[in-house]
Amino acid sequence: MKKKLNTSDETVRVIPLGGLEQIGMNITAFETESSIIVVDCGLAFPEDDMLGVDLVIPDITYLEEKRDKVKGFVITHGHEDHIGALPYVLQRLCVPIYATRLTMAIIENKLKEHNLIGNVKRKVISYGQYINLGDFRIEFICTNHSIADSAALAIYTPAGIIVHTGDFKVDYTPVYGDTIDLARFGELGKKGVLALMCDSTNVLKPGFTESERTVGKTLDSIFEENEKSRIIVATFASNVDRVQQIITSAKKQNRKVVIEGRSMVNIVNTAIELGYIQVPDGMMISLEEMGNYTDDQLVLITTGSQGESMAALSRIAASIHRSVAIKPGDVVIFSSRPIPGNEKSVSKVMNELSMKGAKVIIQDTHVSGHACAEEVKLIYSLVKPKYAIPVHGEYRHLIGQGELAVTMGVDKKNVVILRSGDVLQIGEAEAKVVERVHSAGIMVDGLGVGDVGNIVLRDRQHLSENGLIVVVITLERGSNIVLAGPDIVSRGFVYVREAENLIEECKEIVNIALDRLSSRGVTDWNKMKNEIKDSLTDFLWKKMKRNPVILPIITEV
Amino acid sequence: MKKKLNTSDETVRVIPLGGLEQIGMNITAFETESSIIVVDCGLAFPEDDMLGVDLVIPDITYLEEKRDKVKGFVITHGHEDHIGALPYVLQRLCVPIYATRLTMAIIENKLKEHNLIGNVKRKVISYGQYINLGDFRIEFICTNHSIADSAALAIYTPAGIIVHTGDFKVDYTPVYGDTIDLARFGELGKKGVLALMCDSTNVLKPGFTESERTVGKTLDSIFEENEKSRIIVATFASNVDRVQQIITSAKKQNRKVVIEGRSMVNIVNTAIELGYIQVPDGMMISLEEMGNYTDDQLVLITTGSQGESMAALSRIAASIHRSVAIKPGDVVIFSSRPIPGNEKSVSKVMNELSMKGAKVIIQDTHVSGHACAEEVKLIYSLVKPKYAIPVHGEYRHLIGQGELAVTMGVDKKNVVILRSGDVLQIGEAEAKVVERVHSAGIMVDGLGVGDVGNIVLRDRQHLSENGLIVVVITLERGSNIVLAGPDIVSRGFVYVREAENLIEECKEIVNIALDRLSSRGVTDWNKMKNEIKDSLTDFLWKKMKRNPVILPIITEV
Repeated sequence: MKKKLNTSDETVRVIPLGGLEQIGMNITAFETESSIIVVDCGLAFPEDDMLGVDLVIPDITYLEEKRDKVKGFVITHGHEDHIGALPYVLQRLCVPIYATRLTMAIIENKLKEHNLIGNVKRKVISYGQYINLGDFRIEFICTNHSIADSAALAIYTPAGIIVHTGDFKVDYTPVYGDTIDLARFGELGKKGVLALMCDSTNVLKPGFTESERTVGKTLDSIFEENEKSRIIVATFASNVDRVQQIITSAKKQNRKVVIEGRSMVNIVNTAIELGYIQVPDGMMISLEEMGNYTDDQLVLITTGSQGESMAALSRIAASIHRSVAIKPGDVVIFSSRPIPGNEKSVSKVMNELSMKGAKVIIQDTHVSGHACAEEVKLIYSLVKPKYAIPVHGEYRHLIGQGELAVTMGVDKKNVVILRSGDVLQIGEAEAKVVERVHSAGIMVDGLGVGDVGNIVLRDRQHLSENGLIVVVITLERGSNIVLAGPDIVSRGFVYVREAENLIEECKEIVNIALDRLSSRGVTDWNKMKNEIKDSLTDFLWKKMKRNPVILPIITEV
Repeated sequence: MKKKLNTSDETVRVIPLGGLEQIGMNITAFETESSIIVVDCGLAFPEDDMLGVDLVIPDITYLEEKRDKVKGFVITHGHEDHIGALPYVLQRLCVPIYATRLTMAIIENKLKEHNLIGNVKRKVISYGQYINLGDFRIEFICTNHSIADSAALAIYTPAGIIVHTGDFKVDYTPVYGDTIDLARFGELGKKGVLALMCDSTNVLKPGFTESERTVGKTLDSIFEENEKSRIIVATFASNVDRVQQIITSAKKQNRKVVIEGRSMVNIVNTAIELGYIQVPDGMMISLEEMGNYTDDQLVLITTGSQGESMAALSRIAASIHRSVAIKPGDVVIFSSRPIPGNEKSVSKVMNELSMKGAKVIIQDTHVSGHACAEEVKLIYSLVKPKYAIPVHGEYRHLIGQGELAVTMGVDKKNVVILRSGDVLQIGEAEAKVVERVHSAGIMVDGLGVGDVGNIVLRDRQHLSENGLIVVVITLERGSNIVLAGPDIVSRGFVYVREAENLIEECKEIVNIALDRLSSRGVTDWNKMKNEIKDSLTDFLWKKMKRNPVILPIITEV
């Protein structure tokens, strides 16, 4: 294979099936004549207009059509937007998974939940290790992020080396593990790198992202200032290093630590088992044991930093948590920043906590896990890629990285801004989009995967804004003689008990429509339904400027 | 009246009917034995869970019950959250309005739209002027905010002076008019102020809010850097000073100015007529005239800085605007910051603009209209109130100002954190909440005011997340013999064409339930409906973990 590296006539196909023009659902296929590997397999959380949808997973039709070529999933780190779709996708495309140790352990938790653990081949990879998958050789490189064991990938393809950073930042003083392996990025740069696929999340922010360790110092001083209070810290379930730092601060005051929230308990237990979190014996206690300790002896670490309505902190704030109640004097630290879209929910939880007398602290208790502009420049200066293919970000972020790449010496025509579904054919000679494949997200609602589509969503939207009026009429079979009805039932439209007149008026409108139909001798049900619908729509818009869903139902006896 | 000032046994009642624990819907009544005055009368925009609701107005039942005592509305400034409910409230309580010149002109626009202009007495008040309303004397004091002609109020009551800041900041270099009249706040402080009701919006932010004029400098440099491009600036319709600065920057490059967006056209025209915006003759052109000029000769000032889906900029970004289309090279400046909750919509618009080739600029092109902590301290140091009654903010903000007031010398027991609906009885001797009155917001949906309540919203929520299944059965009159059905119709649940089996299964479940009912001889319709509902709910939850609204309808023939 090695002989093929950097030859000028070979090409490889790069196919992002998600993750571009959006946050979440990261998944990118790399394809040659005979092999496909897939980097990451994440989910996205539903957009505001995806009413009732639980999550969104990538469409892997393209991979299924070429299932024999697919050698496996190579995973950069254990966050939902990089691993969350695996349990769904593996049911349709069962190929091996390659990942670092903590990442794999988190994936395994998921596979167990979905009863898939027995079916899937898995291989834990260390930093610096290579794996050969068909035409590809993949090397895992140490990076820093907001979860331990994050990796960048050097993908050796017949057309040259492609470096994929995964999600990363440069942390010279990481809480766990080593600083990002900048030297290795430099070595690859010296060898010659065809393309760099680099995290764009924070590229529009100038400067450097601060070290995770700065949060530890802030936590220490907050703990000192509030040594008599019970302290509750909310953060992301997966931020293992943050949890470690909270534990370290707690230890200095001999506090016991309680973990609350299902996802956090899962990940923290896994991290402790594997040694990614160090916690002295006897320091962790259960929720039930909290009663045995005084306020100054306790720290509760919990999910809910995003104001998610069902998360532990939100339930505590709303006084519906089974065993924790806020009391005046409690200190609640939000060690997180609201993800765009969650600002109002987070504010709501903060206000509820304040009303119950808690002191809410947000300042300086979070740093991002993503590289800012200067760090991205550092990577470009080391890797010196021929092509820049910005990944992981909204369109503005991709464009922002593209501009940055040009200032770092990448030829403007070699900046490739892809959309999800683009098939990029790339080689020394050129990079061009040669094809488009399916890449729309598939919505998951309950156990239903893909059975909620645009029509269903449009109906939900319409119902949510205007409510519904059902009109039921029973006809004599084969005629248009009305035997019963019109009966009118509404939901989400007006409070019916106070709107009896309105409902009577609606019936009257339907009766007039029926008379009109009858006098014209119309017996076609669709025509009848349309007439009823149009008459009522018209009436209600003129009367009250509202537009409920109108559902005429005709039965016959 | 004057003799009564500062006597120790008099009290006055302060009744916030909205505006606390929330953003928006500011309205506060001040009441003595014989008089009531009302400060502001704003609307709130609906919360995320108020599906389909257009806006929320205060419940003025309390004022209606004492309508003979109500002397008028005293308005601090012309923003929707302070004036927006007037057209609705005045229909039920037609009392005079007192406001500064620009504020009144904006109110008059609204009254014209609602055909109320002939009915309402209005009096324009200048800074420094007093008005006597029953037991109250009110003085208007010059402040700075993000709209000209904003006023603080000194309310002389029988129990002492209450200072209400309105929304304010301290701007030593305002774009229009004078710096906030700090000296007058100081004079009032020397006289002795019973209570200060001060804007809490930015009190958790340290330092000072920058002068509006700093934005002008940034705009100048952006215009210089992009002198060849067409420039589009999105900002708040009501930010008259911002519009002035954009016009000033445009003038330096001899650009023509186009205003787009209904609310902005209204306010800007009013402001120009009254002289609050200076614009050279011939500089303003219409949308239609844009075609006569080159890119470097044009600035478009538009609404939509919050990503509102129907606003001009959003329509431009989505390529559905009737006459403006983005082309590569256009520069779009967001001269605003997203209001919490709007972040995702704003991002969406920015990404759409980027995809069409526009350069999107957000940095340093907005300053807040609200005082930060140091400015609030300045006001406390001048006014030296006995009582602090923080207003205009979420609960956390009110608490934050309370803490700040204590550091400024207010006795801790004299910090009064009110909830909307509290009736505060306040005098030299004490301040205490003596009563609670109606204060829940009234939802406006289309032309309906108050006909959408919690039951309707709960139904809309349920429909929006899960959709709906209607089950129709026709019975023989007086029996439980099924003549027709069950027919099943769904909306927003699954895509029916691909779910025929599921619908058949649902019918089967209903039939089984009907057989069960029949064998037990049940003929009560409510019992039958409940049985159908429960059976289907159970079936669907087990089968697909979903919970649609189930609407059984029984008719008889």
